Amino acid sequence: MGRFLSVVPVEEAVRAAVGLARTVGTETVPIGEAAGRVLAADVCADADLPGFTRSTVDGYAVRAAETVGASDVLPSLLRLRGRVAMGAGAGFALGPGECAYVPTGGEVPAGADAVVMVEYAETLGDEVLVARPVAVGENLVLPDEDFAAGEVIIRAGRRLSAREVGALAAVGRNRVEVRRRPVIGVISTGNEVVPVDVVPARSQVRDVNSHLCHAFATEHGCEARLYGIVRDEAGPLRETLVRAASECDAVLVSGGSSKDDRDMGARTIAELGEVLVHGIALSPGKPTIVGRVDGTPVIGLPGHPGSSFVVLWVIVAPLLAALAGDGTDRTRRARGRLVENVPSVRGREDYVRVTFCAGEVRPVFAKSGLLNSLVRADGLLRVPAGQEGFETGDEVEVLLF
Amino acid sequence: MGRFLSVVPVEEAVRAAVGLARTVGTETVPIGEAAGRVLAADVCADADLPGFTRSTVDGYAVRAAETVGASDVLPSLLRLRGRVAMGAGAGFALGPGECAYVPTGGEVPAGADAVVMVEYAETLGDEVLVARPVAVGENLVLPDEDFAAGEVIIRAGRRLSAREVGALAAVGRNRVEVRRRPVIGVISTGNEVVPVDVVPARSQVRDVNSHLCHAFATEHGCEARLYGIVRDEAGPLRETLVRAASECDAVLVSGGSSKDDRDMGARTIAELGEVLVHGIALSPGKPTIVGRVDGTPVIGLPGHPGSSFVVLWVIVAPLLAALAGDGTDRTRRARGRLVENVPSVRGREDYVRVTFCAGEVRPVFAKSGLLNSLVRADGLLRVPAGQEGFETGDEVEVLLF
Repeated sequence: MGRFLSVVPVEEAVRAAVGLARTVGTETVPIGEAAGRVLAADVCADADLPGFTRSTVDGYAVRAAETVGASDVLPSLLRLRGRVAMGAGAGFALGPGECAYVPTGGEVPAGADAVVMVEYAETLGDEVLVARPVAVGENLVLPDEDFAAGEVIIRAGRRLSAREVGALAAVGRNRVEVRRRPVIGVISTGNEVVPVDVVPARSQVRDVNSHLCHAFATEHGCEARLYGIVRDEAGPLRETLVRAASECDAVLVSGGSSKDDRDMGARTIAELGEVLVHGIALSPGKPTIVGRVDGTPVIGLPGHPGSSFVVLWVIVAPLLAALAGDGTDRTRRARGRLVENVPSVRGREDYVRVTFCAGEVRPVFAKSGLLNSLVRADGLLRVPAGQEGFETGDEVEVLLF
Repeated sequence: MGRFLSVVPVEEAVRAAVGLARTVGTETVPIGEAAGRVLAADVCADADLPGFTRSTVDGYAVRAAETVGASDVLPSLLRLRGRVAMGAGAGFALGPGECAYVPTGGEVPAGADAVVMVEYAETLGDEVLVARPVAVGENLVLPDEDFAAGEVIIRAGRRLSAREVGALAAVGRNRVEVRRRPVIGVISTGNEVVPVDVVPARSQVRDVNSHLCHAFATEHGCEARLYGIVRDEAGPLRETLVRAASECDAVLVSGGSSKDDRDMGARTIAELGEVLVHGIALSPGKPTIVGRVDGTPVIGLPGHPGSSFVVLWVIVAPLLAALAGDGTDRTRRARGRLVENVPSVRGREDYVRVTFCAGEVRPVFAKSGLLNSLVRADGLLRVPAGQEGFETGDEVEVLLF
């Protein structure tokens, strides 16, 4: 491997990473645990929904034709045939000149084709004065108007949120088949790296990347497994990598920030499997590795947490989505106006930390390794490879954290 | 209580709900479980970070003054004093005319004030030819440049995501004090409502709201507890409500979609505690109740899941945030152009389901109770109370699901 990385465009690196992903298997979970999981198979309506003609208001079920021309001055006079109770069938059909009281959500009796809101009707003993005309179908839901029996209501690959869980409940899915959570192994390397609970000696740093990767994978619906800190030596890294690759669906190895360490990471992956990408036209995040060991995707992340974070967003997130069969883009984007110039180098994709407030996008210029600016920023501004930055006043899109 | 609800503006209802919230207590969790939780107390840096002068590149630590005017033609000639290893102190100070190799992340020895990238230097035995000048401070991070000892790095009230977890690791926080998850009780009422695993008889419907509320609360970092389906009778509702209010931090009671049932819900809450709001200038979601029982906030949601969903977004989400002491707004917003008119009634806030694709916002017109359109939509378009809808071509903001 040469001294300088031969870099590939971001899209090519993403394609390589996603191409390595084997979608994980499925499991069945109770509906109460379905939120946040990825649906494994299309879900269809088990029957027509609501299954009966349902009133959407408190009012009187009528034949619409019998309300034509009704007004306060000249109301339609209808005979009150009965009152429908919630959860009970009407038990009768409406004859000519008749109406029936139906509460919101109650069953509209056969023979009726509309409901007059209670506000526009007045009872006089057994009779009802209707002061407004209604059109056929007004204020009611037909038996298959929400879902028709057999209709696909949620497609496989959707990450389920509350509203999909509601729809599952509506069609009787107490349990649902979802993708199991991808298991993501996390290895931290570097002779200067010490565990979080250790006070670093001078020239040492705490292991930030393990926890950054762990939290990122967890947030993305995965189960993260820490394999600890491995010294920058081929033996221990090889051993840990082989174990992690055999136990996980993907492995993240954080560098080794120096050139020698990065090369060792790539060399080890190449020895055990294959390196597809070593170096991406991405800033920060250039020394990223995309490879595989034993059929398992392995991503080599830069040692600087700030750079690692960008690689997690740009390269790892699409990989995790592919593993989970997740077709839902949940990226939060916002458009705003730049209040400072953002210079960039043509030929590489830049991710600049920015604050976003009241439509104003302000770059947080800082050395890429620093956490401070990462915590203070609201999102990342992507400068495409074909562009030499943005200028003050440009309308730009921000990827919000 | 009168026949018609006396409606209050949305902001007033939100204020009432939030005003009832008592922020939950705290607990200490390991860093691996901190993502998604709300920080309970400010976190400060335990020491300067990185704690030593660190190189940001692979290169040669130099005295910047000794590189002034250096070029390919006239390089500066420096004596290589030594090589710094990762995780080990330099062990020497740089004297005049000297330089030292430092890998990315390694300690810059005393006496040096800049680093020349390895690409711009050439070694000749014990000497190094430097072909570019560097400025003081170039390619290095000072001992307190990321965080200074004692500096607040994350404020209380922040919902922690991967980058904050990384910062916690950097300052040695293996465990962190967070708000415990608010416990949200969920009660479903209605004689027509049957459990999800039951095939509804005609005129019955499955219990969608329990699962919708459960998933919503879970997504918002809460622990949801189902109290089952209660018939529309004062006795059982009173009993369940008292129990839930004593066991939870807030209770969601889904209607009772008919007027009589809604009134019973409000009456029961009033008997046991207080009803602050009954009716909101909100569509859908008008018959919402904000009250309290035994000091616990109780929100009465409409029976229609589609309406409930809007109330969860507009009224319940701020309440849950207040309970968790969460000051982070995670709403996903997007701006786009309307491709159809959206009529609305002045004096109430309307939430219209819309699709959002390639900058085009298209209303999904459907009866508010239907799940179908809720699943198909990408977000909600809010029409403020003071406005009579939007017109085709208007630029609008969408609240994305």
